Amino acid sequence: MSVAHLHQIRVRYAETDQMGVAHHSACVAWLEEARIEWLRARGRSYRELEAGGLLMPVVELSIRYFKTLRFDDVATLSTTAVCPGPTRITFTTAVLIGEQRCLEGVVTVAAVDPSGRPVRIPPDLRS
Amino acid sequence: MSVAHLHQIRVRYAETDQMGVAHHSACVAWLEEARIEWLRARGRSYRELEAGGLLMPVVELSIRYFKTLRFDDVATLSTTAVCPGPTRITFTTAVLIGEQRCLEGVVTVAAVDPSGRPVRIPPDLRS
Amino acid sequence: MSVAHLHQIRVRYAETDQMGVAHHSACVAWLEEARIEWLRARGRSYRELEAGGLLMPVVELSIRYFKTLRFDDVATLSTTAVCPGPTRITFTTAVLIGEQRCLEGVVTVAAVDPSGRPVRIPPDLRS
Amino acid sequence: MSVAHLHQIRVRYAETDQMGVAHHSACVAWLEEARIEWLRARGRSYRELEAGGLLMPVVELSIRYFKTLRFDDVATLSTTAVCPGPTRITFTTAVLIGEQRCLEGVVTVAAVDPSGRPVRIPPDLRS
Repeated sequence: MSVAHLHQIRVRYAETDQMGVAHHSACVAWLEEARIEWLRARGRSYRELEAGGLLMPVVELSIRYFKTLRFDDVATLSTTAVCPGPTRITFTTAVLIGEQRCLEGVVTVAAVDPSGRPVRIPPDLRS
Repeated sequence: MSVAHLHQIRVRYAETDQMGVAHHSACVAWLEEARIEWLRARGRSYRELEAGGLLMPVVELSIRYFKTLRFDDVATLSTTAVCPGPTRITFTTAVLIGEQRCLEGVVTVAAVDPSGRPVRIPPDLRS
Repeated sequence: MSVAHLHQIRVRYAETDQMGVAHHSACVAWLEEARIEWLRARGRSYRELEAGGLLMPVVELSIRYFKTLRFDDVATLSTTAVCPGPTRITFTTAVLIGEQRCLEGVVTVAAVDPSGRPVRIPPDLRS
Repeated sequence: MSVAHLHQIRVRYAETDQMGVAHHSACVAWLEEARIEWLRARGRSYRELEAGGLLMPVVELSIRYFKTLRFDDVATLSTTAVCPGPTRITFTTAVLIGEQRCLEGVVTVAAVDPSGRPVRIPPDLRS
């Protein structure tokens, strides 16, 4: 059973739109930040992974929006991950304010080398 | 049968990332631009719809990425729409370079009034 | 003499560009975040100021770039402020990595009411 | 005497903020787009310049905001350029709606090679 990794963000003013809420695109960068912090919590720097030739481009992304987030809100991103195959990781991140789930994102990344060929996810990231 | 609406964008330098391609979040704003142009082609200004009290927040979004886009690429966004219910529209947009499908986004918006209550999609947008 | 307010950010992957560094536009949101935290350190929530009818749109901005920032860099934003007149605040923010000054931004905001008329900066923010 | 290069943009919904106007950071990408189109009008593709080893990072940027832009506004960017030295170009861009000047940006880029060393601006871009 996977333990969720927790990360906090605060909604930036630049991330709002004229509906007075966080624009629906803003969370895409939050989800990415949560994945990078998930890796760091596993002892992995994504910067170093890339420098070492392991890239993780996004191949699929889906987000369901339940409740709007507002400027200056502090939200918790709760992330779990599974490997649907030897060269992919799927991250599921809930963005919460208190107990309220505001949105949920599911993002699949592919592990590739700099030329774009699939490579195996390192064992320590697969368990 | 729905005829696809076509719209062009050019990838901005600011939309690239250090992988040397358009960041996966960049297309979220392109998809939105395509929806707004789809409305305009139907004789509807989204600015005027909002001013008149009809808002269309995104409630669900999914994107599959097939091929990276690069800075300065000119891409065609081909958009169709269906109404899965009286208060929602689902837009499907393929982002193409020539015949090559680079990504596909499916975005569902809910029609709501300024207080967030669901309202019916105007008939001319439903057929 | 003004004591600098310090705030930290970490460069997001989405903020990089194909030069492999933080895009020059990314810091505009960081500078805004620093101003908001400067206000918070003075006991003022910008969200509440806006809700109370005091808006602070940017009227002038200038940035000099000395050294590039990279993905995952942790930078300190050191901010001071002066009032060049009764209705304006000018913030100067240095973005530092360690002792290295990477960029410096000078941003002037105007205090206005919701209709855009200039209003006086509250006294506690002027001293 | 330099003839201004004209380019049009339309304000994206994603570029608005909760003040109901284009966020002050949005224009940074527009100014960049205008510079790239200025180069294209001179017969130069910035993509090819970079591929050929000539990069143009921004070293200084200043913007004065006169009038807010709104979602869906179509604005004209009027750009002129001068070379303040053999390795730099300074672009001045006015963002206009009709005759109304909404903002003006002055951006200086440095011509460098991939290792960051200054290189001379090609002669055809200097006249």
